[in-house]
Amino acid sequence: MKIACVLGQGFEDSEFRVPYDRLKEAGYQVDVVGAKAGEELKGYKGKERVNAEKGIDQVKAEEYDALLIPGGQSPDHLRVDKRFVEFVRAFDGAGKLIAAVCHGPQLLIAAHLVKGRTLTAWQTVQDDLQQIGATVKDEPVVRDRNWITSRKPDDLKQFSDAIVEALEGEEDRPSMRASEATTHP
Amino acid sequence: MKIACVLGQGFEDSEFRVPYDRLKEAGYQVDVVGAKAGEELKGYKGKERVNAEKGIDQVKAEEYDALLIPGGQSPDHLRVDKRFVEFVRAFDGAGKLIAAVCHGPQLLIAAHLVKGRTLTAWQTVQDDLQQIGATVKDEPVVRDRNWITSRKPDDLKQFSDAIVEALEGEEDRPSMRASEATTHP
Repeated sequence: MKIACVLGQGFEDSEFRVPYDRLKEAGYQVDVVGAKAGEELKGYKGKERVNAEKGIDQVKAEEYDALLIPGGQSPDHLRVDKRFVEFVRAFDGAGKLIAAVCHGPQLLIAAHLVKGRTLTAWQTVQDDLQQIGATVKDEPVVRDRNWITSRKPDDLKQFSDAIVEALEGEEDRPSMRASEATTHP
Repeated sequence: MKIACVLGQGFEDSEFRVPYDRLKEAGYQVDVVGAKAGEELKGYKGKERVNAEKGIDQVKAEEYDALLIPGGQSPDHLRVDKRFVEFVRAFDGAGKLIAAVCHGPQLLIAAHLVKGRTLTAWQTVQDDLQQIGATVKDEPVVRDRNWITSRKPDDLKQFSDAIVEALEGEEDRPSMRASEATTHP
């Protein structure tokens, strides 16, 4: 199964690193998708530097099984760019797994997807979400249909476990898998 | 007349410097209010370092005539702290001038003041505002009663001019002035 991780400058270092490593260890392919392939992206805490493996123009949601959205300043940078907003919307439209942590749900807001949904986020974003009409839970991991959301770095172990668990569930339904889309039309 | 400028880490350097200098040149007292007096606050572009002159616990909205909210990452840091949110709400409750630029209106969102109001902000925050029920104009300066809002560093000259113009208007109504509150009960 393939996971797209959308990443921009100033991501929260551990919110990329912890779920990324966990997904790789679990045997999944994770593509870091930035504005341009090869772009060096830096975590705002100065601990992580990552090169985007794919540019947003090179990818389509249909090639992936799930979307990972780390937090920090990255989501607010990415949501300026309509291509990322459309990418997020395409995952949700196909009912594919979206996992977002901390400020990550700002991309879900920008995609106009949160009204009526149940989720969590960084505490300041929780309040934005509530005012927009989402149901917010102040819990480490919140699942709502195809969404898994978490609040902050402290939640990352539970967040990562929940993503792996959800993907393992998807694997039991091979017709959902993007990587098998050609063999299961 | 006295102006409070609320500031946290990672403010957008010019969004503090340009209006601050313009207000000082116009003869106004501007107090930089941080979480703690003496705290060194850094702009995220690395051009500005400012020491907070007042801690949020030392100040009351009634001591000031206007509030300035620069953008960058500062407003999202400040709005975690209920004391800043209440400080903002007190200015608005008293009908005092609030000038916010870029991400500054995130503090107005956190104070639950934006629904039904007309304003502008950084483009990603514009969309948040619209979804919360504000009327958003994509213009360099938007005035709505006691609010002056702008979008980005490019707007700073017009933003600063609009603040000075509004304060000059207030000066013609001395009973509105916090500094004269004791002489005009």
